[in-house]
Amino acid sequence: MGTVAADELPMGLSADKSLIEHHLDRYLTFTAGCPPRLQEAMRYSVLGPGKRLRPLLVLLANRACGGVFEHALPAACAVELIHCYSLIHDDLPAMDDDDLRRGRPTCHRQFDEATAILAGDALIPLAFEIICRDSPTVEIAARCCHQLAVAAGATQLVGGQVDDLAAQFAEIDLQKLEQIHLRKTAAMIAVSLGLGAITASANESQQTALENFGKNLGLAFQIADDLLDLRGDEDKMGKRARKDQVLGKLTYPTALGIEDSIRLANLLVEEALQMLVGFGPTAEPLQAIARYVVSRTK
Amino acid sequence: MGTVAADELPMGLSADKSLIEHHLDRYLTFTAGCPPRLQEAMRYSVLGPGKRLRPLLVLLANRACGGVFEHALPAACAVELIHCYSLIHDDLPAMDDDDLRRGRPTCHRQFDEATAILAGDALIPLAFEIICRDSPTVEIAARCCHQLAVAAGATQLVGGQVDDLAAQFAEIDLQKLEQIHLRKTAAMIAVSLGLGAITASANESQQTALENFGKNLGLAFQIADDLLDLRGDEDKMGKRARKDQVLGKLTYPTALGIEDSIRLANLLVEEALQMLVGFGPTAEPLQAIARYVVSRTK
Repeated sequence: MGTVAADELPMGLSADKSLIEHHLDRYLTFTAGCPPRLQEAMRYSVLGPGKRLRPLLVLLANRACGGVFEHALPAACAVELIHCYSLIHDDLPAMDDDDLRRGRPTCHRQFDEATAILAGDALIPLAFEIICRDSPTVEIAARCCHQLAVAAGATQLVGGQVDDLAAQFAEIDLQKLEQIHLRKTAAMIAVSLGLGAITASANESQQTALENFGKNLGLAFQIADDLLDLRGDEDKMGKRARKDQVLGKLTYPTALGIEDSIRLANLLVEEALQMLVGFGPTAEPLQAIARYVVSRTK
Repeated sequence: MGTVAADELPMGLSADKSLIEHHLDRYLTFTAGCPPRLQEAMRYSVLGPGKRLRPLLVLLANRACGGVFEHALPAACAVELIHCYSLIHDDLPAMDDDDLRRGRPTCHRQFDEATAILAGDALIPLAFEIICRDSPTVEIAARCCHQLAVAAGATQLVGGQVDDLAAQFAEIDLQKLEQIHLRKTAAMIAVSLGLGAITASANESQQTALENFGKNLGLAFQIADDLLDLRGDEDKMGKRARKDQVLGKLTYPTALGIEDSIRLANLLVEEALQMLVGFGPTAEPLQAIARYVVSRTK
């Protein structure tokens, strides 16, 4: 999730990205009751450099469904807060034990372990608070909270992380690898698309098409991440490289080889693009994002 | 939070307690996608012995407002899940570093640190998922999620825990101590009352009265906890005793003396009971709970 990768985003999305970051900054400014060190740690972890892929997907899915842009902003920020909490906790000594994230010390290295655990803990309810307070209707708020809660929960994001940690000490096959990444990575990307659709009051077939787009995109994104890790340019990645290799973890390139991994990522993105056929020109920025994800594998 | 204290609950609440535990059990049974070890850790930490004070308060507040009992069950379970996550994370080595909770090994001692962090992480979204899926209306769902998210967030539950950890290394006065406990303990107790009122579609004055009842009750409960810790009967408490003293933490009895602490707890409960005057006989179980809290100081 490096600083350079952030610059590689498709043209025309930098205004959306700035808007997301402006609102994240606002949501992470507490007027009273939040201890300064906690606020600092939350802001450090969320407002540092990042691609903002997930919140952008929320905004772009809303746009593809002809929604009102502002209606998608709370859900967009909420998804990013959940993503950032998961990075903070994944980096902890008891988990992946990482010192570097997005080119800077990880939260527990910059602050301390207790503060990092608690900063992550505080980001989760903040995501739901923002959706409930700022969504355009209670129906949209309740539906967004429901979808996000499922994606962030024991059967998806957290379950995927548990199985990913366990995979370091076990022989797993390609099917198991896909099961991990469908939950650890693709679920949050798919829900980003789903929330965008909900905030645009999209119909059920639009919703399903976008979520399937997200699932394929999420897996392609993970393959790209594995390939970047293998190539291991720490300066570009902003985190420890060849970590998967060191830990002996099964990845797409180690299971399939580099060429076939690139082929699979391209295939997944082609399938993803098929899901967008019914949307017309409003879905063009989503197409651009999908192509950007494959370009990361090159 | 000992097993004996659980038996001391006012008469007539054991059926409600069983019903809560039945639904918690159901909510913690995943059909697919949740790794077995994660599910086991979540169930171990939630379904072990406990007073179920907070979910009981949700049900009793609903009853005091003439609500439909079943409408309050999702919010009641949600509050307990948030409470249990906070206990798991508070016990971690980087935080209070406790080996014993409710008379059994803490989650990270029974499983491992990563599993304990992730079990806590998974309980938070599950709380919001349950409210969204099973609340009687989207309006009640959105309002309950909003209130619970604020109470569990950076300015209340997590902020209180951050300041409580920092207080171990600092001189603090009685006002600061109250600020910690208003957020770390009383906010979750107050929101339990608030959620009960929301699920009964109570009017604003009922809502405010019950939340103020909860705030006073929460502080009285904390004073009782401090007094129990000081007396330090580990068998009865089910956790390490005289821990506050060992850590040199300021508590109500060390700041005020034992007699004045008991007096303050009684005063807070008297004030709490005043809030219930307008409710009539439907609020009698809440009165009994309030009296039970003071009886713990004796």
